[in-house]
Amino acid sequence: MRAPQSGWVIVAGLGPGASSMMTPEVDRALAEATDIIGYQPYVARITPRQGLSRHASDNRAELDRAHHALRLAAKGRRVVIVSSGDPGVFAMASALFEALESMPQLEADIRILPGITAMLAAAAAAGAPLGHDFCAINLSDNLKPFDLVLKRVRLAAEADFAMAFYNPRSNTRPAQFGEVLATLRDQCEPERLIVFARAVSTPEQVIRTVALSEARPEMADMRTVVIVGSSRTRRVGPFVYTPRSA
Amino acid sequence: MRAPQSGWVIVAGLGPGASSMMTPEVDRALAEATDIIGYQPYVARITPRQGLSRHASDNRAELDRAHHALRLAAKGRRVVIVSSGDPGVFAMASALFEALESMPQLEADIRILPGITAMLAAAAAAGAPLGHDFCAINLSDNLKPFDLVLKRVRLAAEADFAMAFYNPRSNTRPAQFGEVLATLRDQCEPERLIVFARAVSTPEQVIRTVALSEARPEMADMRTVVIVGSSRTRRVGPFVYTPRSA
Repeated sequence: MRAPQSGWVIVAGLGPGASSMMTPEVDRALAEATDIIGYQPYVARITPRQGLSRHASDNRAELDRAHHALRLAAKGRRVVIVSSGDPGVFAMASALFEALESMPQLEADIRILPGITAMLAAAAAAGAPLGHDFCAINLSDNLKPFDLVLKRVRLAAEADFAMAFYNPRSNTRPAQFGEVLATLRDQCEPERLIVFARAVSTPEQVIRTVALSEARPEMADMRTVVIVGSSRTRRVGPFVYTPRSA
Repeated sequence: MRAPQSGWVIVAGLGPGASSMMTPEVDRALAEATDIIGYQPYVARITPRQGLSRHASDNRAELDRAHHALRLAAKGRRVVIVSSGDPGVFAMASALFEALESMPQLEADIRILPGITAMLAAAAAAGAPLGHDFCAINLSDNLKPFDLVLKRVRLAAEADFAMAFYNPRSNTRPAQFGEVLATLRDQCEPERLIVFARAVSTPEQVIRTVALSEARPEMADMRTVVIVGSSRTRRVGPFVYTPRSA
């Protein structure tokens, strides 16, 4: 008989892609798991082994995944929900807590293990564009009105934050990133630096830095993190960085 | 004779404290280094070994450290500058590029290796308070006017970002964090959740969540990261999280 009290759910950040950026505590959780749950491409990063069930699901099935994990843990399973990057940044941790709210009777041991989120790996590859005060904005309007995205971009420009944009562009909303760039052009000088970081830390990584005046929506896709510099961000050699005094 | 072209500088993020949160690529860089440079408590985290010189320096000596590292690399040494957390977030990477600007003749192979920054480890320990759009602000006025800090806090509240505060309080400026809390009280409801995360991932870790109305300046010190929720941030069981829709 399986002991129910031994079940747990860990939401683990796999980092942006390279296994050399995955932390040892995440490695250990994966080694102790009986079940791996996640979006198909992330589950595919986990090596199969005897005794490990891998449950891959579609994108946007976050809440289903979270309920599934909690139900398995209640039965005594040791479940790792795998997230790209960091699970707490536009990823699975919030979905798990949403699911937990709707299952108040459920007893489960829950832990979140942080990971290298895409903007930090992108910033490191480019230099240090997030070297001073900054914000992170999810440009997807899947779960919020797009007007709120534009409002946040405007206020972030007024605050002179550097900005990291997640999910800048998808096939279902090709025009919106153009509106974000237009909002930036209203408020920032044309020389403002923008880093397009695609497939960070993978063999397909491309880092491209342009002035705001040269930025085009098609420079981004769903594998891109976009970093907009503050008014102080500048180039030194092949690097882009934001000074500590700003 | 030493081959000058083999020298390099890597700025590496050690993570917030626990070795289980340090990435394998940082481990490898430390193993290949001839010289470790950094603030004394971070250098002390690196195990001594034959052939490795450890250069510890005081806090606020960032530019000296960076120049030192670049000069050693120009002589062919393999130098790792160690940073707590992520080197690109209020840490050594920007200082290195500042130093590089003043040494334009210098040829050096430079790489930045990301790490788990304190706010991500703190968020994971608390739940997922940075689960939606957020910003990171360094509250120290060491390198910027304090009015700019307050302006950014006001605009971040208007944007309804969750916020992570680094260096919230020090002995040299005990009153300023109180002004930040007063600014938040002007703009946010008294129930707004605030997480005080001290010594994250170390044996001394303490995570404490209070309502804004109960928050006091002395709840923070220089080992604390403070996370302010958005208007949607809420509790579920022992956790604090910000829903994905906001």
